[in-house]
Parts: sequence; structure tokens; C-alpha cells
Amino acid sequence: MSEKSIQETYAPNLACFGCGPANEKGLHIRSIPRGDEVVADFEPQTYQEAFPGVLSGGIIGTLLDCHCNWTAAWHLMKQNGLDHPPCTVTAEYSIKLLRPTPTDKPIHLVARIVESTEDRAIVEGELVAHDKVCATCRGTFVAVKPGHPAYHRW
Amino acid sequence: MSEKSIQETYAPNLACFGCGPANEKGLHIRSIPRGDEVVADFEPQTYQEAFPGVLSGGIIGTLLDCHCNWTAAWHLMKQNGLDHPPCTVTAEYSIKLLRPTPTDKPIHLVARIVESTEDRAIVEGELVAHDKVCATCRGTFVAVKPGHPAYHRW
Repeated sequence: MSEKSIQETYAPNLACFGCGPANEKGLHIRSIPRGDEVVADFEPQTYQEAFPGVLSGGIIGTLLDCHCNWTAAWHLMKQNGLDHPPCTVTAEYSIKLLRPTPTDKPIHLVARIVESTEDRAIVEGELVAHDKVCATCRGTFVAVKPGHPAYHRW
Repeated sequence: MSEKSIQETYAPNLACFGCGPANEKGLHIRSIPRGDEVVADFEPQTYQEAFPGVLSGGIIGTLLDCHCNWTAAWHLMKQNGLDHPPCTVTAEYSIKLLRPTPTDKPIHLVARIVESTEDRAIVEGELVAHDKVCATCRGTFVAVKPGHPAYHRW
């Protein structure tokens, strides 16, 4: 994917460990809208494993949390007719690990909105590797108000 | 805490991103039994932030997932009279982010068993910073059987 990601477009200076383009040691998740879904490809590194050949559940959670958060921010921007995504934070997220996630090929993330109000969204995401869903995520993401430390996050 | 952690005692060669003593780029979570609980201290690094001064929700999930997993392994070892912790994997974990987790001081993790059977445990964990609970975790962790890729994990 050579097109700009949501993060690169709207938050080029963000240094978030999971999704910040400006974090030299981060995961650099690149979320791209595709119709009603948001997708990303990610190439696992050896240091991100839980044991040889299998991705860490914490890295999986980080990928899905950040990717679903940006899916929420993107959706709220569109829904509310804004020109920038509102700064959203994670209220909660749940990860199900269905099978080991192999690290020998790029993995694919996909996320979609389940429901939303003006300032929050519930998002479901999947991690696919070797054509199988290896992990799922369901999270609640909230656009913060002025005064919250994350308000000027991007 | 200068005493050896559970990981250093039973899995010194583990290279898990979250808790492996042998992962040069990992988080090196050091889980220590304290009565019925398992605790850990962790010093956040700038690259692990979500935005300046606040820890990434994905790193928080990684810390709590690995720490709770080792709490389960420790408990199953004791419960079943084994001399080594069984190799456990995460089936699922849920993270609630109650407030921003500050990164300017070490944070504290604590976890305890909620229920268990012979081969699995439900564990609840908390992340405490500045004397406040900033995040909680509830997860299910399962001792894998011979043939599972994680069976010889440690």
C-alpha cells in the first residue's frame, strides 16, 4: 500500500508506540479506508514474537487496539462532517486469540464500526494471517473533550 | 526487586516481547509472587507512550496479558504440585483503561486468580500508577497440551 495512511495524513507527528508515524521504535500501523472498512498490512518482526514463529498476544492487542481506534476516529469524522478525525482514546478493548499468529508473512487487519453515537464508537477488528482469522478485537473508543490530556493528541 | 522473577527462574531463555528475559528489545516484565498475588514493577520508556507522558494502551495490554499469564502458570504449578509452571497461552484478555497512565514514575502490576480448573485459570490484574488504578485486565489462560506449538515455550 503506497497510498498515505490515515495516520500519515492526519497525525504525521504522532509518536504513539502502535500507530505513530513519528515513533522510531514503534509499530507504525498504517490504517487505510476501504469502503465501510479500514484495513492495514503489517510485517511482524522477530522481536515481536511470543515464541519462535508466533506473534506476541500483546503486540496483537496493540495492533488491533490502535487500528480500531483509528477506525473509530475516521468514522466519527465522516459521520459528524468534520475535516479532521477527532482525538479518540480507548475506553476498553477485548482480544480473543483463536490460534497462533504466524510471523513469517505479512498479516492483515480489518475493522468495522458496530455502532456509534456522536462521540464514541464500538469497533470490531480481525487479524488475518495465512488466510485465517487468528485473533479478534472488540473495543469502545471515545472522542475526548477539551481539557482531556489527549485532546491535542493529533 | 532484586530477587529473581518467575520468568528468570523458569524461562531464562524465553524471548517473548512482553516477558522474555532473553528478548533484547522486549519489555522484560518481571513477575514476583507475593502471597496469593503476583506483582511486578515496570519503568515506562518514552517510546512506549501513546502521546507525551501517557503510556500506550497496547503496552498496557501487553504488560497485563503477560503478567496475568504468568500468574496463571504459577498458580497451576502450585495447584497441581508441579516443579515447573506449565506452558500457558492466552485464550482472551480484556483491558479497561480507566484513566491515562503516567510514564514519569515506575508503575505497579498486581494480579490474582479468580477461578481455575486443572488446565486453565481466569486472572484479574490491575495497573497502578501514582497510587491510582489506571487500567484493569481480565483474561483466560490455558495450559497447552503436547503437540501445541507453545508446549515447549519454556
